[in-house]
Amino acid sequence: MIKAAVIGGSGYTGGELARILSRHPGISLEAMTSRQNAGRPIAEAMPFLRGFTGLEFVERLPENGDFDVVFLATPHTASMRLVPQLMERGIKVIDLSADYRLKDPAVYEEWYGHQHSDAVNLSKAVYGLPELFRDDIAGADLVANPGCYPTCTILSLAPLLEKGLVEGKIIVDAKSGTSGAGQEPTRSTHHPNCAVSITPYKVGTHRHTPEIKGVVDGLTGKDIDVIFTPHLLPIVRGMLTTSYATLVDGVTMEEVAMAYRSVYDEERFVHFTSVPAIPATVGSNFCEVGFEVVGSTVVAMAALDNLVKGAAGQAVQNANILFKFDEATGLDFPGLGV
Amino acid sequence: MIKAAVIGGSGYTGGELARILSRHPGISLEAMTSRQNAGRPIAEAMPFLRGFTGLEFVERLPENGDFDVVFLATPHTASMRLVPQLMERGIKVIDLSADYRLKDPAVYEEWYGHQHSDAVNLSKAVYGLPELFRDDIAGADLVANPGCYPTCTILSLAPLLEKGLVEGKIIVDAKSGTSGAGQEPTRSTHHPNCAVSITPYKVGTHRHTPEIKGVVDGLTGKDIDVIFTPHLLPIVRGMLTTSYATLVDGVTMEEVAMAYRSVYDEERFVHFTSVPAIPATVGSNFCEVGFEVVGSTVVAMAALDNLVKGAAGQAVQNANILFKFDEATGLDFPGLGV
Amino acid sequence: MIKAAVIGGSGYTGGELARILSRHPGISLEAMTSRQNAGRPIAEAMPFLRGFTGLEFVERLPENGDFDVVFLATPHTASMRLVPQLMERGIKVIDLSADYRLKDPAVYEEWYGHQHSDAVNLSKAVYGLPELFRDDIAGADLVANPGCYPTCTILSLAPLLEKGLVEGKIIVDAKSGTSGAGQEPTRSTHHPNCAVSITPYKVGTHRHTPEIKGVVDGLTGKDIDVIFTPHLLPIVRGMLTTSYATLVDGVTMEEVAMAYRSVYDEERFVHFTSVPAIPATVGSNFCEVGFEVVGSTVVAMAALDNLVKGAAGQAVQNANILFKFDEATGLDFPGLGV
Amino acid sequence: MIKAAVIGGSGYTGGELARILSRHPGISLEAMTSRQNAGRPIAEAMPFLRGFTGLEFVERLPENGDFDVVFLATPHTASMRLVPQLMERGIKVIDLSADYRLKDPAVYEEWYGHQHSDAVNLSKAVYGLPELFRDDIAGADLVANPGCYPTCTILSLAPLLEKGLVEGKIIVDAKSGTSGAGQEPTRSTHHPNCAVSITPYKVGTHRHTPEIKGVVDGLTGKDIDVIFTPHLLPIVRGMLTTSYATLVDGVTMEEVAMAYRSVYDEERFVHFTSVPAIPATVGSNFCEVGFEVVGSTVVAMAALDNLVKGAAGQAVQNANILFKFDEATGLDFPGLGV
Repeated sequence: MIKAAVIGGSGYTGGELARILSRHPGISLEAMTSRQNAGRPIAEAMPFLRGFTGLEFVERLPENGDFDVVFLATPHTASMRLVPQLMERGIKVIDLSADYRLKDPAVYEEWYGHQHSDAVNLSKAVYGLPELFRDDIAGADLVANPGCYPTCTILSLAPLLEKGLVEGKIIVDAKSGTSGAGQEPTRSTHHPNCAVSITPYKVGTHRHTPEIKGVVDGLTGKDIDVIFTPHLLPIVRGMLTTSYATLVDGVTMEEVAMAYRSVYDEERFVHFTSVPAIPATVGSNFCEVGFEVVGSTVVAMAALDNLVKGAAGQAVQNANILFKFDEATGLDFPGLGV
Repeated sequence: MIKAAVIGGSGYTGGELARILSRHPGISLEAMTSRQNAGRPIAEAMPFLRGFTGLEFVERLPENGDFDVVFLATPHTASMRLVPQLMERGIKVIDLSADYRLKDPAVYEEWYGHQHSDAVNLSKAVYGLPELFRDDIAGADLVANPGCYPTCTILSLAPLLEKGLVEGKIIVDAKSGTSGAGQEPTRSTHHPNCAVSITPYKVGTHRHTPEIKGVVDGLTGKDIDVIFTPHLLPIVRGMLTTSYATLVDGVTMEEVAMAYRSVYDEERFVHFTSVPAIPATVGSNFCEVGFEVVGSTVVAMAALDNLVKGAAGQAVQNANILFKFDEATGLDFPGLGV
Repeated sequence: MIKAAVIGGSGYTGGELARILSRHPGISLEAMTSRQNAGRPIAEAMPFLRGFTGLEFVERLPENGDFDVVFLATPHTASMRLVPQLMERGIKVIDLSADYRLKDPAVYEEWYGHQHSDAVNLSKAVYGLPELFRDDIAGADLVANPGCYPTCTILSLAPLLEKGLVEGKIIVDAKSGTSGAGQEPTRSTHHPNCAVSITPYKVGTHRHTPEIKGVVDGLTGKDIDVIFTPHLLPIVRGMLTTSYATLVDGVTMEEVAMAYRSVYDEERFVHFTSVPAIPATVGSNFCEVGFEVVGSTVVAMAALDNLVKGAAGQAVQNANILFKFDEATGLDFPGLGV
Repeated sequence: MIKAAVIGGSGYTGGELARILSRHPGISLEAMTSRQNAGRPIAEAMPFLRGFTGLEFVERLPENGDFDVVFLATPHTASMRLVPQLMERGIKVIDLSADYRLKDPAVYEEWYGHQHSDAVNLSKAVYGLPELFRDDIAGADLVANPGCYPTCTILSLAPLLEKGLVEGKIIVDAKSGTSGAGQEPTRSTHHPNCAVSITPYKVGTHRHTPEIKGVVDGLTGKDIDVIFTPHLLPIVRGMLTTSYATLVDGVTMEEVAMAYRSVYDEERFVHFTSVPAIPATVGSNFCEVGFEVVGSTVVAMAALDNLVKGAAGQAVQNANILFKFDEATGLDFPGLGV
């Protein structure tokens, strides 16, 4: 049994990790930290876990704790303080923060306003999008678990980029449920403010922009403009991205469809369909992708549950790869559908 | 032109007062205070008022301001500090807080945890439910504007109580949109917490309980048990109350219907219908009431917009009575319907 | 491996049965019928099942099909035509319609407007609420799977009724998500009509009334008035019931709490808590129950997922009992929480 | 008093026209037709109009009815059968269908699948977007009232197009509330299908595409590619469009801002702001527009109430222009804000 811990577990991602791991046959959640909830039974703070865990939140991991893997559900900058210590102890780390997602420390500093303090491990970190980087993940000690928007966007675009079917700038119009904003009440997630609206926010300045661009540039070998506009959606779980790119002259709709099929037909967690639908993915690790061709423009769409494939589920998928489990272990359940 | 001011105007009720008064032909909003927004144009903090008011929020009302009426959109305890000063200046006051709603200072202290500091004016205050107390309001200097839940509940029950058709305890199962909770973000109004749920809260302990009981007792001349269970509903505007009472032996459905008709047929803002519907009332000062008889139980229902008939609209209705305008002046617009 | 079939599987309940059974280690879904979808892959009509079933919908079950259990997700009257044939073939039946829930055929006829055509099996049918009738279910050939409202209501009231703590009439104010209305578009589930509202419907006339009353009377040995008011709630999954009963003179809050604890502490799928919350139950077979005492009135509350514990999940729980599996087999997963 | 009639008034647009006209000081609604509701009081079918109209729906307009203006809330093809008769009688027509919006009958036939039967009046019709075509509307006999998506999109783009600040293709990612789909229940507006989702539909094939392109081409004098992707949003009223265009080399953010200001500063119903918000516009005729510059891309956003500025409100605004009222007559009320 692989022994796991979660640091910073009191938020939605922590709850989701605990929910998934509670049913995982090969990974056991041994400890979960939370400053604000220390000493409190997890199942009391997260009543949906009643009957599934007897653990209490702890203030910090025991120094001599014997963990095989630690999931960091910490904010950025906290992760890069913790990673060196954990790796020194020989513990594999799956970091759900942004600290190890951007390869270039200068880009990190530009977008996050902090110098990166752990360039050594940054260079070793593997971007944890299994459908694209499965082999690298298998041998990694540190996995940078992708952001929800980048996961959704990149899965919808990867076949186009990998096969060289598009060129020029990419426009990403993204819509996310409110759980993506975390569990702390804010003005923007105050129900009267968001429940009968859809609100664009951080247009052109959202920190997932360089993360998307990094992968896009990597897949194409080019320097691609990525315009990223997130919107807050009046649903709780789920995300849709609608992306726009220009087809290389002469590319047909059939070639596009073939690209999606060849890339995803063997994938367990990506379903190629006509119109992606959030409800089919809710509560599950699945991502639905689809496209339409409109003149010379391809509209690439994807839907997923931001807390599962967009966060905790993908983290467990990465853990499965690290520890040679079948990739779907503990994740092999369908979405709610309705 | 009647000159009005609002104290404590930065919340939803203040915005709604400004929205309604901006279209009122006989009352002019001359000042609106807000500590947090002082100096800021109202239409900047409340963009829906752009083009309808050029006022800026002020920190406090000018000492020598020449106001005919002041609306208090202040929290409880703040109102009872302000009322004596305003009344001394000969200004009529419509208080939207709870400070002057409970006739007995001991009951106030029991439910609000504060001694009442203005017993003199408390005894003069008139409960501002026009459909029941229109004549008293006409002669008042201080109007205690009812709470949203009491307005909705009492309008649904009044015909039964006035006509002596029911006896015994009254159960009120109430459901309110989130705007009733005010504009400050909280855990309970955090979208992920409330948007796919309905949550009972303060069961038996909500402060609108003695307010409802006060009117019920007054109408019946008895000491009636009122069980009041509010629920937070995943909508923004609107409220429904479903109340249960026992019919006096022998009372028929026809008598009940006749009671509703005789009490409300001449009322401008109360519609007697079969099943009250929130959408018909949204954005308007209307209240829909209806009932069903099930065996010896009568189920009395009412729907209204908690920010209008449940707060600011009713306050303007009261102002119309105070200043001898037609009661519907400035309020004569239909609900959105959809 | 127990072989199961679903008749009438194209609705939400059928999808939910397929979703749950796809992960059940001891029951295998071998066939699912649907007139409208016959010949179509289930996973095409229900995309959330992609990867979890390769079955196609069939028009009808094969005459010589070797099934151990059939779940009927058929409308009322259809079930009572099918049950005799299936039972004759020695197949156990779990009927999710109302046809076998009301013990008295006269009551059935009164509320459903049809004569009951299968009095023989009606008398043998066991009401499938495991927490109350587990032992009877174990020996049954025909289980009448309870309605969603009755499950939620009865679980919240059972400790009070069983222990004789309440007397007199019972008022049930119930609120259900729209998935309870089924998958056929109607005026009442048209999004603009229901999404910013809560609508009482069939007040006093809903067909779950006699079902609740039947169990209440059975538990108390008395003839109890049940006033049942359902409301349509603007959420998809989930249900809350708020019920009101009068405490027997002298009963204390501690006794009430003790009753809930003694009845539910050993139950896998019922959680006694302070305020039941729908999100903790969504996607799961759990029911949360709680209560408040207000004067001589007890307010009993319960929340559950109407498609799981209120329908398909409870049906599988019943199947587990019938076939001697651990009762939680295939149902041992937490709710989404958020 | 101008005498108005509505043909095809039983839908949301008809209700909204009646709602607005009920408060209009210069236009009187004299008749409203509805096949399905003929003979029924309007205020019974549309309870929010109770107290505001005593009219009954009629099957058809009286042959000799003395109307100054008729609003057509009829489906496409129905309008072009009615317009010639009405115009022959000297009645001004404001058509809310698509029949007279596309100048080229061939384009109409391509997108609507019907030959245009009234080319004569088509050539005379004026596109009723007052902010762009006010002068033409003033002299028109037939106004083609714009679609909701085109109104929102074009208002957000017009300053960029008119001032020649952008070039190349335009991408419109649009999101609409469900009231835009009309009042007939459908699978896509069934609450369980749409309430926890956002669904792209008719990607590249929506009939508002050529309408947007027509105006864009007209404003620029070029043949511009318009990629239009509508999404169904889980709100009832309100719409947001997020559009993407490429800035002409060297255009600065200041120039863009100046363009918006110069075009809209004098407009009563268009507010230039930073981030457009649906709630500020709900229930009102206002449109909020804003933009961000991201590299060489400008992101143009707009929000409005699809039933008001996107339909009935704009129709009344057009009527005001036709009959020389102040353009805001009867429309001079703020949005709900919350």
